[in-house]
Amino acid sequence: MNIELVTIGDELLLGFTLDSNGAHLARELAAIGVTIVRRTSVGDEAEGIAAAVREALERTGAVITTGGLGPTSDDLTKPSIAKVFGRGMRMDNEILEALRARWIAKGWGRELPKTNEQQALVPEGATILVNRHGSAPGIWLEDEKGRWVAMLPGVPREMRGMFADALLPLVRERAERAAGSTRAADASVPVVVSRTIRTTGISESLLADSIAPLAAQLSDLSLAFLPSWPGVDLRITSRGRDAAAAARALDAGEAVLRTAAGAHVYGTDVDDMAKIVLDLCAAKGFTIAVAESCTGGLLGARITAVPGSSHYFVGGVIAYSNEVKATHLGVGDDTLIKHGAVSEETAREMASGVRARYRANVAISLTGVAGPGGGTEKKPVGMVCLGVDIDGEVTTATRNMVGDREEIRQRSAQWALDQVRRRLQA
Amino acid sequence: MNIELVTIGDELLLGFTLDSNGAHLARELAAIGVTIVRRTSVGDEAEGIAAAVREALERTGAVITTGGLGPTSDDLTKPSIAKVFGRGMRMDNEILEALRARWIAKGWGRELPKTNEQQALVPEGATILVNRHGSAPGIWLEDEKGRWVAMLPGVPREMRGMFADALLPLVRERAERAAGSTRAADASVPVVVSRTIRTTGISESLLADSIAPLAAQLSDLSLAFLPSWPGVDLRITSRGRDAAAAARALDAGEAVLRTAAGAHVYGTDVDDMAKIVLDLCAAKGFTIAVAESCTGGLLGARITAVPGSSHYFVGGVIAYSNEVKATHLGVGDDTLIKHGAVSEETAREMASGVRARYRANVAISLTGVAGPGGGTEKKPVGMVCLGVDIDGEVTTATRNMVGDREEIRQRSAQWALDQVRRRLQA
Repeated sequence: MNIELVTIGDELLLGFTLDSNGAHLARELAAIGVTIVRRTSVGDEAEGIAAAVREALERTGAVITTGGLGPTSDDLTKPSIAKVFGRGMRMDNEILEALRARWIAKGWGRELPKTNEQQALVPEGATILVNRHGSAPGIWLEDEKGRWVAMLPGVPREMRGMFADALLPLVRERAERAAGSTRAADASVPVVVSRTIRTTGISESLLADSIAPLAAQLSDLSLAFLPSWPGVDLRITSRGRDAAAAARALDAGEAVLRTAAGAHVYGTDVDDMAKIVLDLCAAKGFTIAVAESCTGGLLGARITAVPGSSHYFVGGVIAYSNEVKATHLGVGDDTLIKHGAVSEETAREMASGVRARYRANVAISLTGVAGPGGGTEKKPVGMVCLGVDIDGEVTTATRNMVGDREEIRQRSAQWALDQVRRRLQA
Repeated sequence: MNIELVTIGDELLLGFTLDSNGAHLARELAAIGVTIVRRTSVGDEAEGIAAAVREALERTGAVITTGGLGPTSDDLTKPSIAKVFGRGMRMDNEILEALRARWIAKGWGRELPKTNEQQALVPEGATILVNRHGSAPGIWLEDEKGRWVAMLPGVPREMRGMFADALLPLVRERAERAAGSTRAADASVPVVVSRTIRTTGISESLLADSIAPLAAQLSDLSLAFLPSWPGVDLRITSRGRDAAAAARALDAGEAVLRTAAGAHVYGTDVDDMAKIVLDLCAAKGFTIAVAESCTGGLLGARITAVPGSSHYFVGGVIAYSNEVKATHLGVGDDTLIKHGAVSEETAREMASGVRARYRANVAISLTGVAGPGGGTEKKPVGMVCLGVDIDGEVTTATRNMVGDREEIRQRSAQWALDQVRRRLQA
């Protein structure tokens, strides 16, 4: 079953918003064997919305839209798509009452503002999709031929909740019907399934060369290289097999890629390096602390983004100034003078210093030149030094990162976590 | 002049990548009066690429693509689009030599891998767009009617460099020609110009209601509400005016929105709260430090993302465990027992503690329940307390944030910076 996405909003065309909704929907739909074959973004303009939805409907008969359901004047999705279906709009009193009740219950005021009332306007013959996280209801519109458009809100939290609660069951049912089956668990339904093998510390070209000799073993899967700052992800996709055969094909493909990429592989799918490091700490009963200069807190933020990280992560020092490095981490003045703040010697003392003072088993330190200023011939922008202290045994390393200030900082945090992973797995 | 974007890559459809290229191009093009009227994403599949580009060409005659120029087997952009133009492919020896020289100069190996050679294949009659930051050259293809497609790489750094160096001048020239002018500075050329007024700490609905009575004064501009975690951005756009009249219209619109939103306005366009706070510190000669619990380093990361932040930001303590709060910030054991780690009392002592120990003028502290676990009836998930200590005068506050763990953390950092802004501006 093929679906097209149409995301709606001037902000998507003018470049002030990244469209995370499309990514979420694509992942969720792929998991039930539904393929997004095209995504289109149009502005808050009635004719453009109608044209994009009409074309998408003609190609696939199945369209999901996001955005343009809010209370403000630029929200045109419902009336534009109603026209495509030749339907009028009607005020839904049940929705209106729910909007009023929610407004008062939230303590936002005594009366629902006029601007919000239009959220209760729905196309004739529409099915309402419940919004657990916000006020704008979603809409399901279907014609006599079974062609449908589902309209979701643009705010990511509302969109995700509504998709899971109300839309996913409807799409799954149609996907099963299209596959000629009435049971979700029917083993003979062909599915599209992907798996991502995550690598770090190796370039796309070198990865491609190490995979090339084994390419014949991957010929029944499609392979995509997805480079970004955490590293290069390798995504293999199986099409046209049933669920059990697809899982076997992906297992075999993963084994081939692991052979090719070796220790550069750190996980699969949405595995996050910080989570992997925390799991390794958990297995050994270790606590962890950080000492950050160039990353300025980013490494701590990566680690604490993981729910439950407080069991293992104690905290750390953001040592941006040399005075903080000396006073709060015990880096020697002679070290700073002789080797400089960006040096493996300083990184070593930062790691040992925070491990001792914050009483952790594992400590990570980073110090580098994030740029754009501050680079020298000997220590150019992108040069970063790290220290890893595990129970008193310290290793240090230096790497030259490419990219702008933010990329250098993000890559540094990923590299540091990867170095801890490798030592804890050794 | 209208342009369509076609972004290419399975990863965009399968949801493993956010498309930041489209956003960048949209902003850059809007600044020269060129409007992106539609964005389409298709997978790494020759027919899908050709169909999307052909349709876009028919609508606008001007298309930019990103992605699918790399050395790996899923990169199909060039041959697919060459077919749309009825052109064959040829090996460009100059590009091939440059690829070889670059490979050796970078120390990646003695010989260019076979997989990389296809990067030197170009459509017949193509103009080459130079790639300053990578190996894949870009392509400009134009037919006898002046309809064109520009193909840029998918890696953001390469795409941005190539756009600025090679494509922007070509597009600007055509935009001017289309506008009937040969001079960029010609004051009579109509432009599309936007301005964003950034607000925080107020909901989209309440903003809409406070703007509604003044709407008549904005009727000659389009207004969009863009809610996200840093707050709600208000974007006004002027179309069809020349540059000077557009600037006056935006100035007038900005004044109206500032009246409506009051102190919730913290900046315009790409202004970042952390940069604003650092500028305020610079103006007063203040240094700044942080003490972070629930945000785990995110506040420091926000501040240090700003180039030059090292002049004012000294560092801070990531105080995730209570032991760190007590030992390294001096939070009293009785405070932690009586009021708990998530309390204004603890936030107060964290702020004072880090200010004194890290010898800064300004200190910010955050402690809260980021979730998903750890919430109680009295202290639910999303409850966050902050402290701001400026030269010994401490203020504290509590707020209940909505969203998931990452949203709560991001909103907390933004809120904390906003509280410092308000005090430093007072």
